[in-house]
Amino acid sequence: MAISAWTPLLVALICVWISGVEVDAQVPGPRTRYQPNWASLDQRPLPQWYDNAKVGIFLHYGVYSVPSFGSEWFWTNWKNLRNPEYVQFMQRNYKPDFTYQEFASQFTAELFNATKWALLFKDSGARYVVLTSKHHDGFTLWPSKNSYGWNSMDVGPKRDIVKELAAAIRKESDLRFGLYYSLFEWFNPLWTDDKLHLLMQQHFVERKVRPEQMELVQQYLPEIIWSDGDWEAPAKYWRSEEFIAWLYNDSPVRNTVVTNDRWGFGTACMHGDFYNCADRFNPGVLQAHKWENAFTLDRTSWGQRFDVSLADFMTSKEVVKEIITTVSCNGNVLINVGPTKFGTILPIFEERLRDMGRWLKFNGEGIYGSVPWIYQNDTITGNVWYTRQKEASNGKITVYAFVLEYPYDTNELDIYPLGKDINIFRNVMLTGIDIGTGGEILNEQSTEVVMLGMEDTKIKWTADHNRLRIVFPPKNHIDKRGLDYAWTFKITISSHSHFIIIT
Amino acid sequence: MAISAWTPLLVALICVWISGVEVDAQVPGPRTRYQPNWASLDQRPLPQWYDNAKVGIFLHYGVYSVPSFGSEWFWTNWKNLRNPEYVQFMQRNYKPDFTYQEFASQFTAELFNATKWALLFKDSGARYVVLTSKHHDGFTLWPSKNSYGWNSMDVGPKRDIVKELAAAIRKESDLRFGLYYSLFEWFNPLWTDDKLHLLMQQHFVERKVRPEQMELVQQYLPEIIWSDGDWEAPAKYWRSEEFIAWLYNDSPVRNTVVTNDRWGFGTACMHGDFYNCADRFNPGVLQAHKWENAFTLDRTSWGQRFDVSLADFMTSKEVVKEIITTVSCNGNVLINVGPTKFGTILPIFEERLRDMGRWLKFNGEGIYGSVPWIYQNDTITGNVWYTRQKEASNGKITVYAFVLEYPYDTNELDIYPLGKDINIFRNVMLTGIDIGTGGEILNEQSTEVVMLGMEDTKIKWTADHNRLRIVFPPKNHIDKRGLDYAWTFKITISSHSHFIIIT
Amino acid sequence: MAISAWTPLLVALICVWISGVEVDAQVPGPRTRYQPNWASLDQRPLPQWYDNAKVGIFLHYGVYSVPSFGSEWFWTNWKNLRNPEYVQFMQRNYKPDFTYQEFASQFTAELFNATKWALLFKDSGARYVVLTSKHHDGFTLWPSKNSYGWNSMDVGPKRDIVKELAAAIRKESDLRFGLYYSLFEWFNPLWTDDKLHLLMQQHFVERKVRPEQMELVQQYLPEIIWSDGDWEAPAKYWRSEEFIAWLYNDSPVRNTVVTNDRWGFGTACMHGDFYNCADRFNPGVLQAHKWENAFTLDRTSWGQRFDVSLADFMTSKEVVKEIITTVSCNGNVLINVGPTKFGTILPIFEERLRDMGRWLKFNGEGIYGSVPWIYQNDTITGNVWYTRQKEASNGKITVYAFVLEYPYDTNELDIYPLGKDINIFRNVMLTGIDIGTGGEILNEQSTEVVMLGMEDTKIKWTADHNRLRIVFPPKNHIDKRGLDYAWTFKITISSHSHFIIIT
Amino acid sequence: MAISAWTPLLVALICVWISGVEVDAQVPGPRTRYQPNWASLDQRPLPQWYDNAKVGIFLHYGVYSVPSFGSEWFWTNWKNLRNPEYVQFMQRNYKPDFTYQEFASQFTAELFNATKWALLFKDSGARYVVLTSKHHDGFTLWPSKNSYGWNSMDVGPKRDIVKELAAAIRKESDLRFGLYYSLFEWFNPLWTDDKLHLLMQQHFVERKVRPEQMELVQQYLPEIIWSDGDWEAPAKYWRSEEFIAWLYNDSPVRNTVVTNDRWGFGTACMHGDFYNCADRFNPGVLQAHKWENAFTLDRTSWGQRFDVSLADFMTSKEVVKEIITTVSCNGNVLINVGPTKFGTILPIFEERLRDMGRWLKFNGEGIYGSVPWIYQNDTITGNVWYTRQKEASNGKITVYAFVLEYPYDTNELDIYPLGKDINIFRNVMLTGIDIGTGGEILNEQSTEVVMLGMEDTKIKWTADHNRLRIVFPPKNHIDKRGLDYAWTFKITISSHSHFIIIT
Repeated sequence: MAISAWTPLLVALICVWISGVEVDAQVPGPRTRYQPNWASLDQRPLPQWYDNAKVGIFLHYGVYSVPSFGSEWFWTNWKNLRNPEYVQFMQRNYKPDFTYQEFASQFTAELFNATKWALLFKDSGARYVVLTSKHHDGFTLWPSKNSYGWNSMDVGPKRDIVKELAAAIRKESDLRFGLYYSLFEWFNPLWTDDKLHLLMQQHFVERKVRPEQMELVQQYLPEIIWSDGDWEAPAKYWRSEEFIAWLYNDSPVRNTVVTNDRWGFGTACMHGDFYNCADRFNPGVLQAHKWENAFTLDRTSWGQRFDVSLADFMTSKEVVKEIITTVSCNGNVLINVGPTKFGTILPIFEERLRDMGRWLKFNGEGIYGSVPWIYQNDTITGNVWYTRQKEASNGKITVYAFVLEYPYDTNELDIYPLGKDINIFRNVMLTGIDIGTGGEILNEQSTEVVMLGMEDTKIKWTADHNRLRIVFPPKNHIDKRGLDYAWTFKITISSHSHFIIIT
Repeated sequence: MAISAWTPLLVALICVWISGVEVDAQVPGPRTRYQPNWASLDQRPLPQWYDNAKVGIFLHYGVYSVPSFGSEWFWTNWKNLRNPEYVQFMQRNYKPDFTYQEFASQFTAELFNATKWALLFKDSGARYVVLTSKHHDGFTLWPSKNSYGWNSMDVGPKRDIVKELAAAIRKESDLRFGLYYSLFEWFNPLWTDDKLHLLMQQHFVERKVRPEQMELVQQYLPEIIWSDGDWEAPAKYWRSEEFIAWLYNDSPVRNTVVTNDRWGFGTACMHGDFYNCADRFNPGVLQAHKWENAFTLDRTSWGQRFDVSLADFMTSKEVVKEIITTVSCNGNVLINVGPTKFGTILPIFEERLRDMGRWLKFNGEGIYGSVPWIYQNDTITGNVWYTRQKEASNGKITVYAFVLEYPYDTNELDIYPLGKDINIFRNVMLTGIDIGTGGEILNEQSTEVVMLGMEDTKIKWTADHNRLRIVFPPKNHIDKRGLDYAWTFKITISSHSHFIIIT
Repeated sequence: MAISAWTPLLVALICVWISGVEVDAQVPGPRTRYQPNWASLDQRPLPQWYDNAKVGIFLHYGVYSVPSFGSEWFWTNWKNLRNPEYVQFMQRNYKPDFTYQEFASQFTAELFNATKWALLFKDSGARYVVLTSKHHDGFTLWPSKNSYGWNSMDVGPKRDIVKELAAAIRKESDLRFGLYYSLFEWFNPLWTDDKLHLLMQQHFVERKVRPEQMELVQQYLPEIIWSDGDWEAPAKYWRSEEFIAWLYNDSPVRNTVVTNDRWGFGTACMHGDFYNCADRFNPGVLQAHKWENAFTLDRTSWGQRFDVSLADFMTSKEVVKEIITTVSCNGNVLINVGPTKFGTILPIFEERLRDMGRWLKFNGEGIYGSVPWIYQNDTITGNVWYTRQKEASNGKITVYAFVLEYPYDTNELDIYPLGKDINIFRNVMLTGIDIGTGGEILNEQSTEVVMLGMEDTKIKWTADHNRLRIVFPPKNHIDKRGLDYAWTFKITISSHSHFIIIT
Repeated sequence: MAISAWTPLLVALICVWISGVEVDAQVPGPRTRYQPNWASLDQRPLPQWYDNAKVGIFLHYGVYSVPSFGSEWFWTNWKNLRNPEYVQFMQRNYKPDFTYQEFASQFTAELFNATKWALLFKDSGARYVVLTSKHHDGFTLWPSKNSYGWNSMDVGPKRDIVKELAAAIRKESDLRFGLYYSLFEWFNPLWTDDKLHLLMQQHFVERKVRPEQMELVQQYLPEIIWSDGDWEAPAKYWRSEEFIAWLYNDSPVRNTVVTNDRWGFGTACMHGDFYNCADRFNPGVLQAHKWENAFTLDRTSWGQRFDVSLADFMTSKEVVKEIITTVSCNGNVLINVGPTKFGTILPIFEERLRDMGRWLKFNGEGIYGSVPWIYQNDTITGNVWYTRQKEASNGKITVYAFVLEYPYDTNELDIYPLGKDINIFRNVMLTGIDIGTGGEILNEQSTEVVMLGMEDTKIKWTADHNRLRIVFPPKNHIDKRGLDYAWTFKITISSHSHFIIIT
């Protein structure tokens, strides 16, 4: 191995070390109290469950599910931006002066069945669920004391959606339950008034945001606080540090709760247990700090739309790819589903979730609880990504290589090949794993390669300058087992090959 | 005159003196600042306009106008008391779990025309109008910053009802504009939560009541703050003294505003510019402190009901009687009208108001700007009530005697009497006015009697032990002029006859 | 008496004779079958109950009660005439493309109580009630087999309004029940299609009108068929003669049913048991054929409007005048009330009806069962109208003189007259009654004058050239008894005075 | 070949001959007039376009799309069967006495875009579209003259859905347009009344059904009349023969229209241009008479449901299988889609349709315009079905063999086989085609085998007792080309091998 090969390893070393620092915050002990400033708050170790979970479901559900047109930003697109498409939609279909608030009584949720949802999410392989307790329209999915007449108990469903879903998630599955909460509200006069006063007053925070944040945590014990809508004011205005300090020190979920990074402008990608940075953030390279890729199955909207086409939906293969590339780079995925105003989840979403669940059932071993490998993707062989098992034992390291595309034979001359060298077709060279130590052949014997879902099958491979060249099983054998979208090779090697890294 | 006759006079003396103390608060001068305690606040003199006005219109308009069933207490009767009538009404006519809030979008007010209302109120002879800016249901008729989604701009009318009416009242008439505001709200969770905390916290006052009170005054400059819904908490909880002090000292309406007495339990009939005491308070005897008799034309409800019968309505005659008896005892009347959800005022209300207006046009001289007379009603002759002109001039006092019932002849033997002594029929003895001084006949010549509306006609009368015995004009002469309901005699006498009183 | 005085008597003779021909159709006997042509149908004698009844209530109730704007012609004013007021009302308050049919689900009638209505109508003094079973919009108030989805059972009230009202009317009162039925329907495509085919086809009559007419009669046994909406097609198109022949010959109500005159263009004022001629027809002169004056209390609309003002309503006095002038000329009155979409009758209507009921209680003797007198009104003395009792007995005729205005004294010089000649004031000269025969004084003794409602009082009168000059009782005596609006003198004279007439 | 093998051939001979009788009815000529009786009507040859089309889209769209619960039989399940699930759904979510008719105003179709639909159907590979112009609820999707107030123009969409879709289908594609029309209506009182009269009267047919059928044909020129709802009365009641005779003789679509077999009880599988027999009829064996398999993608409902799960949907593979098995037996498929009340088609439907379209793009050659082969499916080798090309030329016959399951290798011992005999894996024996004549090997040279979608690839096969044993290409080669669900081999053989059949 040339010296040059070491450079990335050294860089990666630090990264892996960082991501490897894990604390089981659930173990009680002499507790440090955090101060309400970022310097102190940023010291808090990430609760381990979140890093292990990898896959979450995001639910955008609210009054915007009633017009079900455009996106969940319906109200502001219509009334603030005066987007002609929205304006016309309203002019054509509603009476003049119809207000957004009047949609609420049609937000009936008559078919909403939290247990059904919980079982589906469980089957999807997700490990946590995040619900929009309040979006930018301010409508709360629980009977907020501070949102009188503008919540799911007073109008529309007449149900405490947050409570029902929390209970079902906890009863029917071992998933964790989290809550999205938008700080700002487009049209709340308390907020717009604070803005008019150049944020020199904080009526909105005092009378609305803080009371609701506290209420949510105390009543529903969410283990994720997924903050949003922060960008129009600094964290000081929102008094976010104060809130997070309470969350970490004194809240009933202080041991396990995690928060994201949207707490005021300037905090994104800077503070928080995990970083969301932008929506659909998927940098493709390793991130030192834990992050989350929140993306939507319907590419164009987080909320339900009936004006949606199949073309707007990610394919199941794309979903799997998103999971793999995210997890390889130290991220979690938060996959968004927009239920209908009736309380149902469209079959197209269900199909994606079940496909994903099937894939995770076979391949989850390489996802859940994994940590990034030295390399995230194979820079030589395209469409190959890596993770590794957190624990190394007996001098063995387990690395997972996800191959996103089946290596179709390109030799079309004779499609019924007999007795040909297998190397010429259907093989994948994995350059991210070094199976020798300084070129020694010994290690080769201790290397094991298994394809997840085909553990009973011996996988053929050869060593090529200390790199693995794996021969794919014929596609009919793979397909017969229902494996699809991406194929995972679990490779166990001697830790000596990478001994400087794992200590 | 016997000694015993002096006793009531002496008592009355004090009362008249009290009511005679008038201050034109509108004249600026070195201003006393009031302290936020009743001892100080009670020192404030009553702005003169209010005492002069005598007649106001009360408007109960809100979401309860949508079910228009039972009364404006619909919500609490239905949901708190679970009154079977209301429960059944809802069960029969609305979907299960229909909430009161969902009525709001049907509160359309499509025919609401503030100018039309203003002109009607002007024609009714009223001098001020009080609108329910917020009733116990918490729905605000203006776009309150602190009642997001539960106000007339966000849902229902999509209009600022308070603003439109204030403008029309001020433009179309010289009426004063006032606002009713309910302190408590049946179902506001901020309030119920404060109660749960035994009123040891005041979230509701801080986040809702005070901001709204300030907003109302600053934006709409109401000259009456008609407080209500105070009875479940002490004034200290509501911080009422603080608010009133601001109102008197610093608010933009500090010179002319008046408030009633509903500021916390224990304040009714104790503090405030005028006292409402109970609803429909009409004590029938002189009250030392300025008071107001708020009553409804539809006897059983303040809000509009469609399940109303003619029998529920006061007759025009009863309305006039209520005005007379109230004003005689130092009160104002506040006559309630419940508009429909469409924004209209039912013709039956209009009829009562126009009848009243016609009566006041003839007889208003004895009402507006009057002060109580020594006697409020005639204890010897039933159905006679008195007021007097505030100003006495040239040694003359002007007293008004309102006769509520026409003295129908009881002699049925011959209904076509010719040459009979007029004393035997159609006369009224007024024992409340002494036209002699110690029995002297001299005064008789200086006494003048006129019937309002028949000023061109000489009214016959005789003196009977210094009391006036007035002969009614024949009914056909009265009716021909459109006089009805009650007949007013304006009696000018030498102030000597009551010299000790008027100084 | 001069010769010229005889001429009107002779003319009147014929009229009275005509109206005197009465047949109790309820007495069975060898029945004549009517042919389906006017010549035959016109032979049918008028069932006596109808002529006796005099006063009916008309009810316009339907989907137009929902917009409650403008009038019951809302739909056509909006959609056919494109009246800007209506168009704007819809544009402002409803979503685009909102259709009239969609009002139907808001036609809830939740407070509709047929018994309450029946009791009110009974108290009003009416003797029959006519309900709009179907107006020009085609919406039927019963579950018509031929109006699927567009009737009160399928949408809106979900009740058989016709049935409920028929039952209540028959149970709670001895009133007769009739049904209005509009032949044409503005927008029914069967009808517009027939018109497009120049009425050469009768699909609309075959599939809609005739089946519904039959169904109504067979199911609800109405005793009045009040046909309308006939004017766009001849009776031949509507096959009206055929239907009426069935009604007279074979229908279950053949003995008592009456129909009006709106059966095709050209039939108005020409055929039918009674004539309506135009709406609000009140010719002021005697009509040879029985007729009916259908008019509205709300002058501008038959259906309920919420955009109504008091000024739009007839006063109670006007209603009484309308009754008197109509009945004097051989007509009945059909007084229209428009209930609200909630199923209630506004108090202003109730007030008019109860006032009328009170008047009829005193004065009904001169109305019900009466027949026209020789003169309908007094051409010399204004505001006096006459009827007479049908039966003359013992050589006596009873005539009723209705005085619409109280003869107020004009002598203002001395309004307390003593010992003046009564003839100079408060008297009414009745020139329509001859109390002498050729100037003989004898008859005078046999003349009796009584005021209805004051039967205990001797009425003063003098003879003046064989005419009665009646002295009104003083107004206070009249008012004391609650008599108002119009005063009725019942005058019994020797039939000799008019012997040529009554034989 | 044993004699026994000939028997099915002889039987099939007749069938093929039958299905081969094709008439281009579009070619004008001396026209036979059909009599209104089945004997005559059954003589009519099937218009060729229909047999060629094979694949149609069925659309169930109507008021039932509003509750979107259970199925399009919502109304009768709820109101006639009183199915507790439906009853509870209504009790929980709607006001008491809410009627089905009241759903109509919520049938808004605001996102309905006929062009979008047309393009999707075109892409799906369908050749005709059938829309429910009126289902059993009687609601018409066009402004029927005989369904006043209960059609898509008067309430709900306010659009002529039939017209818009017909226009779009004809403009955007070369698909044919047909109309479903339900004869009976569950609750139409004209119909229930006819039933009460034991069908001795035909008011419903005269006033509703016949006028609407005529109107539909004359206005929209549908080329398919898909009759339904016939089962409660005989064809004589419905006067179906009369209507069909008009359709064949005089209607504007007489040359090309086809009808199904639901014209009265007893007609199913007996009369009509094509037979539907039962819903989802797929007999699996050759049918002598042209038939159609109408089935739903959502297995449990024809109308849209929001309470649907992914499990309720057929997979794309199942759809393809249904097409193949149906067409092989002389049927067409009519694939049902239920649009939403918003006017959209759920992505899950779109996915199935596009998958199907992709499959048909590759494999349609064996479907469109094909005729049944001697054998419909391979009785020896499972999951293989046949069709053949209509035209034989140059002594060649073209047969299509559809293989529904990929012949996965079962040899698991060594999944990387090298140099093994291909016969042991991935081959399919087609016993339905005889490539020899009496065992001669000559024919073998003239046999060609091609896989549709892989025409560039030489397919390996061997002869095995005159039967083809085809070796499947490796799955990776197939998958690379996007072939899925079922694989079609196009086999051209000498017609001598089956000479007796094809002449």
